Amino acid sequence: MERNKFMKLLVINGPNLNFLGIRDKKVYGTEDYNALLDMIRAHAKELGAEAECFQSNGEGEIIDRIQKAYSDGTDGIVINPGAYTHYSYAIRDALDSFDTIPMVEIHISDINAREEFRRISVTAPACDYQIVGHGLKGYLEAMDWIVRYHRHSQENDSGLNLSER
Amino acid sequence: MERNKFMKLLVINGPNLNFLGIRDKKVYGTEDYNALLDMIRAHAKELGAEAECFQSNGEGEIIDRIQKAYSDGTDGIVINPGAYTHYSYAIRDALDSFDTIPMVEIHISDINAREEFRRISVTAPACDYQIVGHGLKGYLEAMDWIVRYHRHSQENDSGLNLSER
Amino acid sequence: MERNKFMKLLVINGPNLNFLGIRDKKVYGTEDYNALLDMIRAHAKELGAEAECFQSNGEGEIIDRIQKAYSDGTDGIVINPGAYTHYSYAIRDALDSFDTIPMVEIHISDINAREEFRRISVTAPACDYQIVGHGLKGYLEAMDWIVRYHRHSQENDSGLNLSER
Repeated sequence: MERNKFMKLLVINGPNLNFLGIRDKKVYGTEDYNALLDMIRAHAKELGAEAECFQSNGEGEIIDRIQKAYSDGTDGIVINPGAYTHYSYAIRDALDSFDTIPMVEIHISDINAREEFRRISVTAPACDYQIVGHGLKGYLEAMDWIVRYHRHSQENDSGLNLSER
Repeated sequence: MERNKFMKLLVINGPNLNFLGIRDKKVYGTEDYNALLDMIRAHAKELGAEAECFQSNGEGEIIDRIQKAYSDGTDGIVINPGAYTHYSYAIRDALDSFDTIPMVEIHISDINAREEFRRISVTAPACDYQIVGHGLKGYLEAMDWIVRYHRHSQENDSGLNLSER
Repeated sequence: MERNKFMKLLVINGPNLNFLGIRDKKVYGTEDYNALLDMIRAHAKELGAEAECFQSNGEGEIIDRIQKAYSDGTDGIVINPGAYTHYSYAIRDALDSFDTIPMVEIHISDINAREEFRRISVTAPACDYQIVGHGLKGYLEAMDWIVRYHRHSQENDSGLNLSER
Protein backbone atom coordinates (compact mmCIF):
# COMPACT_ATOMS: atom_id res chain seq x y z
CA MET A 1 0.00 0.00 0.00
CA GLU A 2 1.03 3.62 -0.48
CA ARG A 3 2.84 5.19 2.44
CA ASN A 4 0.70 7.59 4.47
CA LYS A 5 -2.49 6.39 2.89
CA PHE A 6 -5.41 5.99 5.30
CA MET A 7 -5.49 2.21 5.91
CA LYS A 8 -8.69 0.45 4.86
CA LEU A 9 -9.54 -2.76 6.73
CA LEU A 10 -12.35 -5.13 5.83
CA VAL A 11 -13.84 -7.28 8.60
CA ILE A 12 -15.97 -10.17 7.31
CA ASN A 13 -18.22 -12.09 9.66
CA GLY A 14 -19.83 -15.29 8.46
CA PRO A 15 -23.01 -17.15 9.42
CA ASN A 16 -24.60 -16.65 12.83
CA LEU A 17 -22.09 -14.08 14.04
CA ASN A 18 -24.88 -11.50 13.90
CA PHE A 19 -26.42 -13.64 16.68
CA LEU A 20 -23.62 -12.84 19.12
CA GLY A 21 -25.10 -12.30 22.56
CA ILE A 22 -28.00 -14.65 21.69
CA ARG A 23 -26.13 -17.80 20.67
CA ASP A 24 -24.36 -19.94 23.30
CA LYS A 25 -23.27 -17.18 25.68
CA LYS A 26 -20.97 -19.57 27.55
CA VAL A 27 -18.88 -19.94 24.42
CA TYR A 28 -19.30 -16.56 22.74
CA GLY A 29 -19.93 -14.21 25.65
CA THR A 30 -22.76 -11.81 26.36
CA GLU A 31 -21.66 -8.92 24.15
CA ASP A 32 -23.83 -8.64 21.07
CA TYR A 33 -22.89 -8.04 17.45
CA ASN A 34 -23.33 -4.29 17.73
CA ALA A 35 -20.92 -4.22 20.66
CA LEU A 36 -18.39 -6.03 18.46
CA LEU A 37 -18.89 -3.47 15.68
CA ASP A 38 -18.36 -0.63 18.16
CA MET A 39 -15.14 -2.23 19.44
CA ILE A 40 -13.83 -2.71 15.92
CA ARG A 41 -14.61 0.85 14.85
CA ALA A 42 -13.10 2.36 17.99
CA HIS A 43 -9.95 0.30 17.53
CA ALA A 44 -9.69 1.27 13.86
CA LYS A 45 -9.79 4.92 14.90
CA GLU A 46 -6.94 4.35 17.36
CA LEU A 47 -4.93 2.73 14.58
CA GLY A 48 -5.65 5.62 12.23
CA ALA A 49 -7.47 3.19 10.00
CA GLU A 50 -10.94 2.73 8.61
CA ALA A 51 -12.83 -0.53 9.16
CA GLU A 52 -15.71 -1.76 7.07
CA CYS A 53 -17.71 -4.53 8.71
CA PHE A 54 -19.58 -7.00 6.53
CA GLN A 55 -21.74 -9.86 7.78
CA SER A 56 -23.61 -12.47 5.81
CA ASN A 57 -25.07 -15.90 6.40
CA GLY A 58 -24.50 -16.75 2.73
CA GLU A 59 -21.40 -18.47 1.40
CA GLY A 60 -21.82 -16.87 -2.03
CA GLU A 61 -22.25 -13.38 -0.56
CA ILE A 62 -19.05 -13.81 1.47
CA ILE A 63 -17.16 -14.85 -1.67
CA ASP A 64 -18.63 -11.85 -3.55
CA ARG A 65 -17.33 -9.54 -0.81
CA ILE A 66 -13.86 -11.11 -0.78
CA GLN A 67 -13.63 -10.73 -4.55
CA LYS A 68 -14.71 -7.09 -4.36
CA ALA A 69 -11.81 -6.48 -1.95
CA TYR A 70 -9.39 -7.34 -4.76
CA SER A 71 -10.09 -4.05 -6.49
CA ASP A 72 -11.74 -1.66 -4.03
CA GLY A 73 -8.59 -0.48 -2.25
CA THR A 74 -8.90 -2.79 0.76
CA ASP A 75 -5.55 -3.08 2.56
CA GLY A 76 -6.31 -6.22 4.57
CA ILE A 77 -9.04 -8.69 5.44
CA VAL A 78 -10.01 -9.97 8.88
CA ILE A 79 -12.37 -12.91 8.43
CA ASN A 80 -14.38 -15.08 10.77
CA PRO A 81 -16.03 -17.55 8.40
CA GLY A 82 -18.17 -19.05 11.19
CA ALA A 83 -19.19 -22.63 10.46
CA TYR A 84 -18.10 -22.25 6.82
CA THR A 85 -14.58 -22.51 8.24
CA HIS A 86 -15.03 -26.24 8.42
CA TYR A 87 -16.20 -27.04 4.88
CA SER A 88 -16.23 -24.06 2.52
CA TYR A 89 -13.54 -24.84 -0.02
CA ALA A 90 -15.27 -22.17 -2.11
CA ILE A 91 -14.42 -19.44 0.45
CA ARG A 92 -10.90 -20.90 0.72
CA ASP A 93 -10.47 -20.60 -3.05
CA ALA A 94 -11.74 -17.00 -2.95
CA LEU A 95 -9.23 -16.08 -0.23
CA ASP A 96 -6.53 -17.89 -2.14
CA SER A 97 -7.29 -16.24 -5.44
CA PHE A 98 -5.14 -13.17 -4.77
CA ASP A 99 -2.25 -12.52 -2.40
CA THR A 100 -1.93 -8.78 -2.85
CA ILE A 101 -3.26 -8.03 0.65
CA PRO A 102 -2.82 -9.75 4.05
CA MET A 103 -5.68 -11.89 5.34
CA VAL A 104 -6.20 -13.02 8.94
CA GLU A 105 -8.65 -15.68 10.07
CA ILE A 106 -10.14 -15.19 13.51
CA HIS A 107 -12.31 -17.34 15.77
CA ILE A 108 -13.79 -16.06 19.00
CA SER A 109 -13.73 -19.44 20.73
CA ASP A 110 -11.00 -22.05 20.75
CA ILE A 111 -12.24 -24.16 17.83
CA ASN A 112 -9.76 -26.86 18.81
CA ALA A 113 -11.39 -27.42 22.19
CA ARG A 114 -14.95 -28.01 20.96
CA GLU A 115 -16.74 -30.50 18.71
CA GLU A 116 -14.55 -32.62 16.45
CA PHE A 117 -15.83 -31.00 13.25
CA ARG A 118 -14.65 -27.57 14.42
CA ARG A 119 -11.01 -28.64 14.62
CA ILE A 120 -10.54 -28.52 10.88
CA SER A 121 -10.23 -25.17 9.18
CA VAL A 122 -10.30 -25.51 5.41
CA THR A 123 -10.04 -21.73 5.03
CA ALA A 124 -6.99 -21.10 7.23
CA PRO A 125 -4.44 -22.37 4.67
CA ALA A 126 -5.51 -19.46 2.43
CA CYS A 127 -4.87 -16.89 5.17
CA ASP A 128 -1.60 -15.40 6.37
CA TYR A 129 -2.33 -15.69 10.07
CA GLN A 130 -4.90 -17.20 12.42
CA ILE A 131 -6.12 -16.10 15.86
CA VAL A 132 -8.32 -18.45 17.91
CA GLY A 133 -9.83 -18.38 21.36
CA HIS A 134 -9.04 -14.80 22.32
CA GLY A 135 -12.71 -13.76 22.44
CA LEU A 136 -13.83 -10.58 20.70
CA LYS A 137 -10.38 -9.13 21.42
CA GLY A 138 -9.12 -11.44 18.68
CA TYR A 139 -10.63 -9.14 16.06
CA LEU A 140 -8.57 -6.22 17.37
CA GLU A 141 -5.41 -8.34 17.41
CA ALA A 142 -6.09 -9.33 13.81
CA MET A 143 -6.39 -5.65 12.89
CA ASP A 144 -3.10 -4.95 14.69
CA TRP A 145 -1.44 -7.77 12.78
CA ILE A 146 -2.44 -6.24 9.45
CA VAL A 147 -1.25 -2.77 10.42
CA ARG A 148 2.05 -4.23 11.61
CA TYR A 149 2.34 -6.25 8.41
CA HIS A 150 2.07 -3.11 6.29
CA ARG A 151 4.47 -1.17 8.51
CA HIS A 152 7.05 -3.95 8.15
CA SER A 153 6.51 -4.11 4.40
CA GLN A 154 7.23 -0.42 4.12
CA GLU A 155 10.34 -0.71 6.28
CA ASN A 156 11.39 -3.61 4.10
CA ASP A 157 11.01 -1.42 1.01
CA SER A 158 13.45 0.96 2.72
CA GLY A 159 15.98 -1.81 3.23
CA LEU A 160 14.88 -3.27 6.57
CA ASN A 161 13.98 -6.89 7.16
CA LEU A 162 10.45 -8.24 6.89
CA SER A 163 10.54 -10.96 9.46
CA GLU A 164 6.92 -11.50 10.31
CA ARG A 165 5.13 -12.92 7.30
CA MET B 1 -46.13 -19.56 24.42
CA GLU B 2 -49.14 -17.74 25.78
CA ARG B 3 -52.12 -19.93 26.46
CA ASN B 4 -54.92 -19.61 23.88
CA LYS B 5 -52.69 -17.79 21.45
CA PHE B 6 -53.16 -18.84 17.83
CA MET B 7 -50.17 -21.15 17.25
CA LYS B 8 -47.72 -20.04 14.54
CA LEU B 9 -45.75 -22.79 12.84
CA LEU B 10 -42.91 -22.26 10.40
CA VAL B 11 -42.18 -24.99 7.85
CA ILE B 12 -38.80 -24.62 6.16
CA ASN B 13 -37.97 -26.64 3.06
CA GLY B 14 -34.42 -26.69 1.78
CA PRO B 15 -32.87 -27.24 -1.64
CA ASN B 16 -34.75 -29.14 -4.35
CA LEU B 17 -37.89 -29.72 -2.29
CA ASN B 18 -39.69 -27.35 -4.64
CA PHE B 19 -38.98 -30.07 -7.24
CA LEU B 20 -41.19 -32.62 -5.49
CA GLY B 21 -43.13 -34.57 -8.09
CA ILE B 22 -40.34 -33.99 -10.63
CA ARG B 23 -37.34 -35.41 -8.77
CA ASP B 24 -36.98 -39.17 -8.26
CA LYS B 25 -40.64 -40.09 -7.94
CA LYS B 26 -39.76 -43.57 -6.66
CA VAL B 27 -38.19 -42.00 -3.58
CA TYR B 28 -40.27 -38.86 -3.12
CA GLY B 29 -43.62 -39.81 -4.60
CA THR B 30 -45.69 -38.17 -7.31
CA GLU B 31 -47.28 -35.39 -5.26
CA ASP B 32 -45.77 -32.03 -6.12
CA TYR B 33 -44.65 -29.19 -3.87
CA ASN B 34 -47.99 -27.40 -4.11
CA ALA B 35 -49.78 -30.55 -2.95
CA LEU B 36 -47.46 -30.59 0.07
CA LEU B 37 -48.27 -26.95 0.81
CA ASP B 38 -52.00 -27.70 0.59
CA MET B 39 -51.63 -30.65 2.99
CA ILE B 40 -49.69 -28.55 5.48
CA ARG B 41 -52.16 -25.68 5.38
CA ALA B 42 -55.17 -27.96 5.73
CA HIS B 43 -53.56 -29.73 8.69
CA ALA B 44 -52.67 -26.43 10.35
CA LYS B 45 -56.32 -25.44 10.12
CA GLU B 46 -57.36 -28.70 11.80
CA LEU B 47 -54.87 -27.98 14.57
CA GLY B 48 -56.15 -24.44 14.99
CA ALA B 49 -52.74 -23.20 13.98
CA GLU B 50 -51.23 -21.10 11.25
CA ALA B 51 -48.44 -22.48 9.06
CA GLU B 52 -46.00 -20.40 7.08
CA CYS B 53 -44.14 -22.36 4.42
CA PHE B 54 -40.71 -21.18 3.32
CA GLN B 55 -38.58 -22.80 0.65
CA SER B 56 -35.12 -21.85 -0.54
CA ASN B 57 -32.25 -23.49 -2.36
CA GLY B 58 -29.81 -21.20 -0.53
CA GLU B 59 -28.06 -22.09 2.70
CA GLY B 60 -27.74 -18.43 3.70
CA GLU B 61 -31.43 -17.72 3.01
CA ILE B 62 -32.43 -20.68 5.19
CA ILE B 63 -30.25 -19.37 8.03
CA ASP B 64 -31.75 -15.88 7.58
CA ARG B 65 -35.25 -17.38 7.93
CA ILE B 66 -34.34 -19.41 11.02
CA GLN B 67 -32.89 -16.30 12.66
CA LYS B 68 -35.99 -14.29 11.83
CA ALA B 69 -38.04 -16.92 13.70
CA TYR B 70 -36.23 -15.96 16.89
CA SER B 71 -38.17 -12.74 17.13
CA ASP B 72 -41.22 -12.94 14.86
CA GLY B 73 -43.50 -14.88 17.19
CA THR B 74 -42.92 -18.31 15.63
CA ASP B 75 -43.95 -21.08 18.05
CA GLY B 76 -42.10 -23.94 16.38
CA ILE B 77 -40.03 -24.87 13.35
CA VAL B 78 -40.46 -27.90 11.10
CA ILE B 79 -37.40 -28.14 8.87
CA ASN B 80 -36.40 -30.36 5.99
CA PRO B 81 -32.91 -29.11 5.16
CA GLY B 82 -32.68 -31.29 2.04
CA ALA B 83 -29.10 -32.13 1.10
CA TYR B 84 -27.81 -29.44 3.49
CA THR B 85 -28.70 -31.94 6.20
CA HIS B 86 -25.50 -33.76 5.46
CA TYR B 87 -22.95 -30.93 5.61
CA SER B 88 -24.39 -27.58 6.68
CA TYR B 89 -22.83 -26.89 10.04
CA ALA B 90 -23.92 -23.29 9.42
CA ILE B 91 -27.62 -24.29 9.46
CA ARG B 92 -26.93 -26.47 12.49
CA ASP B 93 -25.43 -23.49 14.32
CA ALA B 94 -28.43 -21.34 13.37
CA LEU B 95 -30.87 -23.93 14.75
CA ASP B 96 -28.70 -24.27 17.81
CA SER B 97 -28.45 -20.56 18.46
CA PHE B 98 -31.70 -20.34 20.43
CA ASP B 99 -33.78 -22.93 22.25
CA THR B 100 -36.84 -20.85 22.98
CA ILE B 101 -39.01 -22.79 20.52
CA PRO B 102 -39.21 -26.49 19.55
CA MET B 103 -37.64 -27.57 16.27
CA VAL B 104 -38.33 -30.80 14.39
CA GLU B 105 -36.25 -32.14 11.50
CA ILE B 106 -38.14 -34.10 8.90
CA HIS B 107 -37.09 -36.18 5.89
CA ILE B 108 -39.57 -37.60 3.42
CA SER B 109 -37.49 -40.66 2.59
CA ASP B 110 -35.58 -42.92 4.92
CA ILE B 111 -32.19 -41.22 4.69
CA ASN B 112 -30.63 -44.21 6.45
CA ALA B 113 -31.57 -46.58 3.64
CA ARG B 114 -30.04 -44.64 0.75
CA GLU B 115 -26.55 -43.43 -0.25
CA GLU B 116 -23.89 -43.47 2.46
CA PHE B 117 -23.61 -39.65 2.58
CA ARG B 118 -27.30 -39.34 3.48
CA ARG B 119 -26.91 -41.31 6.70
CA ILE B 120 -25.27 -38.43 8.51
CA SER B 121 -27.39 -35.52 9.69
CA VAL B 122 -25.27 -32.68 11.01
CA THR B 123 -28.39 -30.61 11.64
CA ALA B 124 -30.38 -33.14 13.70
CA PRO B 125 -28.36 -32.62 16.91
CA ALA B 126 -29.68 -29.04 16.96
CA CYS B 127 -33.30 -30.19 16.73
CA ASP B 128 -35.60 -31.57 19.42
CA TYR B 129 -37.04 -34.39 17.35
CA GLN B 130 -36.53 -36.09 14.00
CA ILE B 131 -38.99 -37.84 11.68
CA VAL B 132 -37.66 -39.86 8.71
CA GLY B 133 -39.18 -42.02 6.03
CA HIS B 134 -42.87 -41.30 6.67
CA GLY B 135 -43.37 -39.59 3.31
CA LEU B 136 -45.16 -36.23 3.13
CA LYS B 137 -47.18 -37.33 6.15
CA GLY B 138 -44.03 -36.74 8.18
CA TYR B 139 -44.57 -32.98 7.93
CA LEU B 140 -47.98 -33.32 9.55
CA GLU B 141 -46.56 -35.51 12.30
CA ALA B 142 -43.90 -32.90 12.95
CA MET B 143 -46.60 -30.24 13.28
CA ASP B 144 -48.50 -32.50 15.70
CA TRP B 145 -45.34 -32.96 17.75
CA ILE B 146 -44.92 -29.20 18.16
CA VAL B 147 -48.55 -28.69 19.14
CA ARG B 148 -48.27 -31.54 21.66
CA TYR B 149 -45.03 -30.10 22.97
CA HIS B 150 -46.68 -26.76 23.72
CA ARG B 151 -49.73 -28.42 25.26
CA HIS B 152 -47.49 -30.43 27.59
CA SER B 153 -45.47 -27.34 28.47
CA GLN B 154 -48.64 -25.54 29.49
CA GLU B 155 -49.82 -28.52 31.54
CA ASN B 156 -46.39 -28.60 33.10
CA ASP B 157 -46.74 -24.95 34.03
CA SER B 158 -49.95 -26.00 35.82
CA GLY B 159 -48.12 -28.68 37.79
CA LEU B 160 -48.31 -31.65 35.42
CA ASN B 161 -45.32 -33.56 34.13
CA LEU B 162 -43.58 -32.74 30.87
CA SER B 163 -42.46 -36.16 29.85
CA GLU B 164 -41.94 -35.83 26.16
CA ARG B 165 -39.04 -33.52 25.46
CA MET C 1 -35.14 -32.15 -28.67
CA GLU C 2 -36.98 -31.32 -31.88
CA ARG C 3 -35.02 -31.88 -35.04
CA ASN C 4 -33.72 -28.68 -36.70
CA LYS C 5 -34.42 -26.62 -33.60
CA PHE C 6 -31.71 -24.10 -32.80
CA MET C 7 -29.82 -25.82 -29.95
CA LYS C 8 -29.78 -23.97 -26.63
CA LEU C 9 -26.81 -24.68 -24.37
CA LEU C 10 -26.45 -23.48 -20.80
CA VAL C 11 -22.94 -23.05 -19.40
CA ILE C 12 -22.86 -22.72 -15.60
CA ASN C 13 -19.71 -21.54 -13.85
CA GLY C 14 -19.49 -21.81 -10.09
CA PRO C 15 -17.56 -19.91 -7.44
CA ASN C 16 -14.37 -18.04 -8.32
CA LEU C 17 -14.47 -18.87 -12.02
CA ASN C 18 -15.17 -15.18 -12.67
CA PHE C 19 -11.63 -14.70 -11.26
CA LEU C 20 -10.01 -16.56 -14.13
CA GLY C 21 -6.82 -14.77 -15.11
CA ILE C 22 -6.43 -13.47 -11.55
CA ARG C 23 -6.49 -16.72 -9.56
CA ASP C 24 -3.52 -19.11 -9.69
CA LYS C 25 -2.40 -18.50 -13.28
CA LYS C 26 -0.10 -21.54 -13.21
CA VAL C 27 -3.15 -23.77 -12.75
CA TYR C 28 -5.86 -21.86 -14.60
CA GLY C 29 -3.89 -19.95 -17.25
CA THR C 30 -3.76 -16.25 -18.05
CA GLU C 31 -6.98 -15.95 -20.06
CA ASP C 32 -9.66 -14.15 -18.09
CA TYR C 33 -13.35 -14.94 -17.67
CA ASN C 34 -14.36 -12.69 -20.56
CA ALA C 35 -11.97 -14.54 -22.87
CA LEU C 36 -13.68 -17.77 -21.83
CA LEU C 37 -17.09 -16.28 -22.60
CA ASP C 38 -15.87 -15.16 -26.03
CA MET C 39 -14.51 -18.65 -26.78
CA ILE C 40 -17.79 -20.28 -25.73
CA ARG C 41 -19.93 -17.93 -27.80
CA ALA C 42 -17.74 -18.25 -30.87
CA HIS C 43 -17.83 -22.04 -30.57
CA ALA C 44 -21.60 -22.05 -30.13
CA LYS C 45 -21.90 -20.09 -33.36
CA GLU C 46 -19.75 -22.65 -35.20
CA LEU C 47 -22.03 -25.39 -33.86
CA GLY C 48 -25.15 -23.52 -34.94
CA ALA C 49 -26.13 -23.32 -31.30
CA GLU C 50 -26.84 -20.64 -28.75
CA ALA C 51 -24.93 -20.55 -25.46
CA GLU C 52 -26.08 -18.81 -22.33
CA CYS C 53 -23.33 -18.33 -19.76
CA PHE C 54 -24.25 -18.08 -16.09
CA GLN C 55 -21.81 -17.54 -13.23
CA SER C 56 -22.48 -17.34 -9.53
CA ASN C 57 -20.53 -17.73 -6.33
CA GLY C 58 -23.71 -18.92 -4.55
CA GLU C 59 -24.71 -22.55 -4.21
CA GLY C 60 -28.42 -21.64 -4.01
CA GLU C 61 -28.24 -19.44 -7.11
CA ILE C 62 -26.60 -22.27 -9.07
CA ILE C 63 -29.38 -24.64 -8.01
CA ASP C 64 -32.00 -22.04 -8.98
CA ARG C 65 -30.43 -21.82 -12.45
CA ILE C 66 -30.28 -25.60 -12.89
CA GLN C 67 -33.95 -25.89 -11.92
CA LYS C 68 -34.90 -23.15 -14.36
CA ALA C 69 -33.27 -25.19 -17.13
CA TYR C 70 -35.86 -27.90 -16.57
CA SER C 71 -38.54 -25.80 -18.21
CA ASP C 72 -36.89 -23.01 -20.22
CA GLY C 73 -36.05 -25.03 -23.32
CA THR C 74 -32.39 -25.69 -22.47
CA ASP C 75 -31.04 -28.61 -24.49
CA GLY C 76 -27.98 -29.35 -22.38
CA ILE C 77 -25.96 -28.12 -19.43
CA VAL C 78 -22.20 -27.68 -19.21
CA ILE C 79 -21.30 -27.10 -15.58
CA ASN C 80 -18.09 -26.27 -13.75
CA PRO C 81 -19.22 -26.23 -10.11
CA GLY C 82 -15.82 -24.91 -8.92
CA ALA C 83 -15.12 -25.85 -5.31
CA TYR C 84 -18.77 -26.87 -4.79
CA THR C 85 -17.78 -29.95 -6.81
CA HIS C 86 -16.24 -31.40 -3.69
CA TYR C 87 -19.10 -31.04 -1.19
CA SER C 88 -22.34 -29.70 -2.66
CA TYR C 89 -24.74 -32.58 -2.41
CA ALA C 90 -27.44 -29.94 -2.93
CA ILE C 91 -26.13 -29.14 -6.44
CA ARG C 92 -25.79 -32.89 -7.08
CA ASP C 93 -29.44 -33.39 -6.14
CA ALA C 94 -30.47 -30.52 -8.42
CA LEU C 95 -28.58 -32.02 -11.38
CA ASP C 96 -30.03 -35.40 -10.53
CA SER C 97 -33.61 -34.18 -10.26
CA PHE C 98 -34.33 -34.47 -13.98
CA ASP C 99 -32.70 -36.48 -16.77
CA THR C 100 -34.49 -34.95 -19.73
CA ILE C 101 -31.35 -33.17 -20.97
CA PRO C 102 -27.66 -34.15 -21.05
CA MET C 103 -25.32 -32.63 -18.47
CA VAL C 104 -21.54 -32.48 -18.66
CA GLU C 105 -19.23 -31.57 -15.77
CA ILE C 106 -16.04 -29.80 -16.70
CA HIS C 107 -12.92 -28.82 -14.78
CA ILE C 108 -10.19 -26.68 -16.27
CA SER C 109 -7.39 -28.26 -14.26
CA ASP C 110 -6.78 -31.91 -13.53
CA ILE C 111 -8.56 -32.08 -10.18
CA ASN C 112 -7.01 -35.50 -9.60
CA ALA C 113 -3.48 -34.13 -9.62
CA ARG C 114 -3.97 -31.42 -6.98
CA GLU C 115 -4.95 -31.26 -3.29
CA GLU C 116 -6.56 -34.37 -1.83
CA PHE C 117 -9.97 -32.70 -1.33
CA ARG C 118 -10.24 -31.93 -5.04
CA ARG C 119 -10.12 -35.60 -6.03
CA ILE C 120 -13.69 -36.22 -4.97
CA SER C 121 -16.52 -34.95 -7.14
CA VAL C 122 -19.89 -35.35 -5.45
CA THR C 123 -21.60 -33.72 -8.43
CA ALA C 124 -20.15 -35.91 -11.22
CA PRO C 125 -22.41 -38.92 -10.49
CA ALA C 126 -25.38 -36.72 -11.45
CA CYS C 127 -23.82 -35.81 -14.82
CA ASP C 128 -23.63 -37.83 -18.02
CA TYR C 129 -20.02 -37.06 -18.81
CA GLN C 130 -16.99 -35.41 -17.23
CA ILE C 131 -14.05 -33.56 -18.79
CA VAL C 132 -11.04 -32.66 -16.61
CA GLY C 133 -7.67 -31.08 -17.21
CA HIS C 134 -8.15 -29.91 -20.78
CA GLY C 135 -7.96 -26.23 -19.89
CA LEU C 136 -10.55 -23.80 -21.24
CA LYS C 137 -10.82 -26.01 -24.31
CA GLY C 138 -12.70 -28.46 -22.09
CA TYR C 139 -15.77 -26.21 -22.22
CA LEU C 140 -15.84 -26.46 -26.01
CA GLU C 141 -15.44 -30.24 -25.87
CA ALA C 142 -18.35 -30.39 -23.44
CA MET C 143 -20.47 -28.39 -25.87
CA ASP C 144 -19.44 -30.76 -28.68
CA TRP C 145 -20.41 -33.74 -26.53
CA ILE C 146 -23.93 -32.36 -26.02
CA VAL C 147 -24.39 -31.61 -29.72
CA ARG C 148 -23.17 -35.11 -30.58
CA TYR C 149 -25.45 -36.59 -27.94
CA HIS C 150 -28.52 -34.98 -29.51
CA ARG C 151 -27.43 -35.95 -33.02
CA HIS C 152 -27.08 -39.59 -31.91
CA SER C 153 -30.43 -39.48 -30.15
CA GLN C 154 -32.09 -38.32 -33.34
CA GLU C 155 -30.34 -40.99 -35.38
CA ASN C 156 -31.41 -43.49 -32.77
CA ASP C 157 -35.00 -42.32 -33.19
CA SER C 158 -34.52 -43.20 -36.87
CA GLY C 159 -33.36 -46.68 -35.99
CA LEU C 160 -29.60 -46.17 -35.48
CA ASN C 161 -27.68 -47.13 -32.37
CA LEU C 162 -27.07 -44.72 -29.50
CA SER C 163 -23.75 -45.98 -28.24
CA GLU C 164 -22.33 -43.04 -26.42
CA ARG C 165 -24.41 -42.39 -23.36
